[in-house]
Amino acid sequence: MDGAESLVRTLVAGGVDVCFANPGTSELNFVSALDKVDGMRCVLCLFEGVAAGAADGYARMANKPASTLLHLGPGLANGLANLHNAKRAQSPVVNIVGDHASYHRVYDAPLTADIEALARPVSSWVRTVTDARSVAVDGAAAIAAAHAAPGQVATLILPADTAWNEGSGVASVPRVPPRPAVASAIVEATARILRSGEPTVLLLGGVSLRTEGLALAGRIAAKSGAQLLAQTFNARVERGAGRVPVERVPYFVDQALAVFKEVRHVILVGARAPVAFFGYPGKPSALTPPGCDIQTLAAPHEDLTGALAALAEAIGAPRAAAWPVDEPPRVPTGGAITSDALAATLGSLLPEGAIICDESLTTGQSFFPMTYAAAPHDWLQLTGGAIGDGMPLATGAAVACPERKVISLEADGSGMYTLQSLWTQAREGLNVITLIWANHAYAILRHELANVGAKNPGPKALEMVSLGNPELDWVSLAKGMGVEGRRVETVDELVRAFRAGIAVRGPFLIEVVL
Amino acid sequence: MDGAESLVRTLVAGGVDVCFANPGTSELNFVSALDKVDGMRCVLCLFEGVAAGAADGYARMANKPASTLLHLGPGLANGLANLHNAKRAQSPVVNIVGDHASYHRVYDAPLTADIEALARPVSSWVRTVTDARSVAVDGAAAIAAAHAAPGQVATLILPADTAWNEGSGVASVPRVPPRPAVASAIVEATARILRSGEPTVLLLGGVSLRTEGLALAGRIAAKSGAQLLAQTFNARVERGAGRVPVERVPYFVDQALAVFKEVRHVILVGARAPVAFFGYPGKPSALTPPGCDIQTLAAPHEDLTGALAALAEAIGAPRAAAWPVDEPPRVPTGGAITSDALAATLGSLLPEGAIICDESLTTGQSFFPMTYAAAPHDWLQLTGGAIGDGMPLATGAAVACPERKVISLEADGSGMYTLQSLWTQAREGLNVITLIWANHAYAILRHELANVGAKNPGPKALEMVSLGNPELDWVSLAKGMGVEGRRVETVDELVRAFRAGIAVRGPFLIEVVL
Repeated sequence: MDGAESLVRTLVAGGVDVCFANPGTSELNFVSALDKVDGMRCVLCLFEGVAAGAADGYARMANKPASTLLHLGPGLANGLANLHNAKRAQSPVVNIVGDHASYHRVYDAPLTADIEALARPVSSWVRTVTDARSVAVDGAAAIAAAHAAPGQVATLILPADTAWNEGSGVASVPRVPPRPAVASAIVEATARILRSGEPTVLLLGGVSLRTEGLALAGRIAAKSGAQLLAQTFNARVERGAGRVPVERVPYFVDQALAVFKEVRHVILVGARAPVAFFGYPGKPSALTPPGCDIQTLAAPHEDLTGALAALAEAIGAPRAAAWPVDEPPRVPTGGAITSDALAATLGSLLPEGAIICDESLTTGQSFFPMTYAAAPHDWLQLTGGAIGDGMPLATGAAVACPERKVISLEADGSGMYTLQSLWTQAREGLNVITLIWANHAYAILRHELANVGAKNPGPKALEMVSLGNPELDWVSLAKGMGVEGRRVETVDELVRAFRAGIAVRGPFLIEVVL
Repeated sequence: MDGAESLVRTLVAGGVDVCFANPGTSELNFVSALDKVDGMRCVLCLFEGVAAGAADGYARMANKPASTLLHLGPGLANGLANLHNAKRAQSPVVNIVGDHASYHRVYDAPLTADIEALARPVSSWVRTVTDARSVAVDGAAAIAAAHAAPGQVATLILPADTAWNEGSGVASVPRVPPRPAVASAIVEATARILRSGEPTVLLLGGVSLRTEGLALAGRIAAKSGAQLLAQTFNARVERGAGRVPVERVPYFVDQALAVFKEVRHVILVGARAPVAFFGYPGKPSALTPPGCDIQTLAAPHEDLTGALAALAEAIGAPRAAAWPVDEPPRVPTGGAITSDALAATLGSLLPEGAIICDESLTTGQSFFPMTYAAAPHDWLQLTGGAIGDGMPLATGAAVACPERKVISLEADGSGMYTLQSLWTQAREGLNVITLIWANHAYAILRHELANVGAKNPGPKALEMVSLGNPELDWVSLAKGMGVEGRRVETVDELVRAFRAGIAVRGPFLIEVVL
C-alpha cells in the first residue's frame, strides 16, 4: 500500500473517519485511497475555510477529531482563519496539508510556500512527513496530538512523494494522557475564597459548560452564593430545560466592566482571565477591577469536572440544587421582526437536541436569556473572532450528529465569508436551518465607530460598514447552491418558515429581513 | 491628526489612492480618516481574498500599488492565498493589516495571532508600527518597498493605538532605485549563444511581455532564429494585433517536456528556469533536458527592456521584424459550445483594450493561439497557482482601468473560492464580463489522477473531483449579489450574450454550459 493508503487506514483505525476536503493534484493519492479503505467519509468543500470550520464544528459535537485535506500553502492559508477559531475552541483537528513531492520543493514551482511557517500560528503540533514508510506513524502521532487535552490543532504536512511511494501499513495511536487532576491544595484555597462570602464569580470555560460541569457549578453557586458566568465566546454550552442556566460575560466592554465592577474574586474553571475583546481608547483591557483577585481552579487542559466535584465536596454543597424553571417563551405572533421576536421563535420552537451555531453578534445578544427554558440543546459560538465560522461549524456539526437539527444563526455580513458551506450542506443532505439576519450592514462596526474615537463618521466611513448597495439576496444565493430558501418580513412568516425548516430533511435557509 | 489620518494622507501623497478593504473594529480609525482626506478611493470587499486579489489585479494594470485594509491575523489569513499570487506576479501591494492596540496584545484576546509570522511567507517586507508618530514614515517606507523592482508585497501592521493616537503629518516616499542595468559582458555572452545557431529558447517573463519588450524579442528572434516563449503563467501579456505573438510553456508536463526536448540553450529574460508545476512519479522536475544550458540575460528585478535592446543591438537585429498577421477568427455560428468556439468568440469579438483575467485551466488552453490577431488586449493569469484569483483580479483591473472592458474567464470550481467579488463589481459598477465554464467538475484533477499514479479511480475518488451534485447555478449566485446573468447552451446564445455583455456598462455574468 502507498503512503496515502497507510495514512487513511491509520486515520480510520484511530477513530478519525470523517475528512473535510478540498484536494488538489498533490492530494490525489489520498483521494484515490478512499476507494481502497472502508470507513472514511470524505466531505467535499468548495473552499478550505469551509473544510476547516466544519472540522471544528464536527469536533465540538463528536468529541473527537475529523481530518481536513488541504492543498499546499495556499489551501492551508484559506483554512487558517477557521483553524484559528478551532484553536481558540480547543477543538481536536487532524489538519492534513499536501505539499509538493519533497524533491520538487527546491525548484520553487509557483505553488511552493513555507507551509510550516503558515501552520504554526494556528497549530499546537506541526510535522512534515519525510518518508512514505513513516506516514502511518506520523499520522498516528497527529491523532494523539489532536486529542491531547484540552484538544489541539495538529498539522500533518504530506509531501506528494510520501503519499505515492510505498508505505508501511497501519500505525496505532499512542496513548493520550488523561487530563491531570487539580491538586487538593488548589481546591482548598478556592474553597476558602468561596467561604469568605466576598463577591465572587465562577467563570466557566471548556468542558465545564457541559451538563455535568454545570450541575456541579450550580451546586457550588447554591451553597456559596458565587455568581456563575461563562466566557463571552464558548466552544459548546449544553443548555435548555434541565440544565443549569449560565449567562455569558457581555461582549461590549462597558457592559462587561459593569458585570465585574463589584467582584472581589474570579475563579477560573477552564476559562481565561476576562479581557476586553478589543482595546479601546481610555478603557482598560482587563475586565476585572484593580484589587480583584483571580484564582485558577483548573487550567483548560486539567480535569475541570473533577475539580468542580472536589470543590463542591470541599464546601459541602448540596447534592442537588434547584434552579428556578421558567416557562419557555410563547410562539410570537404578529408584527415586525425584532430581536426579541427572533429569540422567542427560537425559545419556543427549538426542537429537542437542536445544535445552535451562533455567529450573530449584534442581533443575537438577547437570544441566550430567552432560551434557558427551551428544549435541551447545544450552543456553539465563534470562539476566535475570525468571522466566517458559523456556516462551516453548522456543516460539521450536522455531519457529526445527523439525527439532530442544526440551527445556523448568521448575519449577512459574516455569512458572506464562507457561503460555499451551503453547497456542501446540499450535497450531503445536511439537516441545517440557516437563519440570515439581513440588516445590510456590518452592524457591529457601526456600533464600534464611536468606541474607537471615530465620532461623527462621514459618508465614506459609513459606506465601509454598509452592505446595502446592492442588497444581498440570500434566497438566490442559496438557490445557486441547491438549497431551498425563503425570505420573511413578518413574525408570522418567520414562524411559518422556521416550522417548515424543522419539517424539512436537509438544508433550508431563511432570510430574515430586519 | 491621528496616526490613521497621517497614513491615509501619506498613501495619497505617495500615489496610493485606492484601498481594497475589509475592515473590522481595529481599522475603524483608518476608515474614519477617509472622510477627512480627499483622494482615497476605498473599495469594500466582502472577503479578504477578494481585496488581496483585487490589489494584485489593480497593480498589474496601474503599474503602481493599491493598498489593502485587513482585520488582524485572521483577516490577513483570508487574504494570504491571493497575496501569494501577487508575490508570484511581482505585483506591488501595500498590504495594511490592523492589529490590537499594542498594550492589548499581552492579554491574548480571542483575535490575537502572530501577524508577522503569517505575513512573512507572502511578503518581501514586513513592519509593525510601534508609535503613532512613525506611522507616516512607516507608510512611506511600505510604498517604497512595494515599488522596489520587480514589485513586492509590503506588509504594514498597524496596531489600533498607533492609528488613534496623535500622528505626525505626511511623510514622503523614499526614492526607489531604478532597475539595475545588465552588464555588457552578460549581453555579449548571450549574443554568442544566439550566434551559435544552436536551438535556443528566449524565455520571457515580467515586463518583457509588454509591447516594447516583445517587439525587441521579436527582432532578436527574427535575426537569430531563437524561439520565443513566455512562462506558463504570467502577470500580464500585451497581445493581439500589432503585438509580437508569443506562445507559453505548456502547463501539462509531457507537453512541456516535448517543447524543450531538442533545445540546447534557454535564455531567461525576467523568467525563472522552467520547471514542472507539480512533481509527478517518474517525471523530471526540470523541463529542460540534461545538457541544456540555462543563461540568465536579466533577472526579474533588472532592466529587462534595456537588456533586450542591448542584445538586439549586439546581434545586429533588424530595426523592425515582420510577423505573419493572421486574420482574427470569424464569429462562430451554430452548434454546441466547444473550447474552440469559446476561443473564436473571444478572438472575434474582443473589444479593443480588453483586459482578460484568465483562471480557466483546462478549458482555456486553446484560447491563446486563437486570439493572436484579436484587437489589442492584455492577458492576466493566475501566477501562483492559488485558485480563486481570477474574479478578484478582474475586480481590481476594472478599478484601475474603468474605460476598458474586463473579461473574467473562470471555471465553476475556481470561481467558487472568491465569488464574493461579484458583489463588489455590482457595488462599484465595474465593467466586467464574467464567463463561467460550467463543467461541474474540478476538471484538471480528473486529468491529474492518472498522472500521480492513481489509475482507475473509484467512485469515492471521482466524487471528490465532481461538482455535479448539486450543480451550481451561477445565474442565481450572480443575482444574489446584484449582478445580471445569463445561462447559454449554444454557440449562438453565447455570441448574443457576449455581445450583450459588451454593450452593458457594469458587471455581467455568462454561465457557459459545456
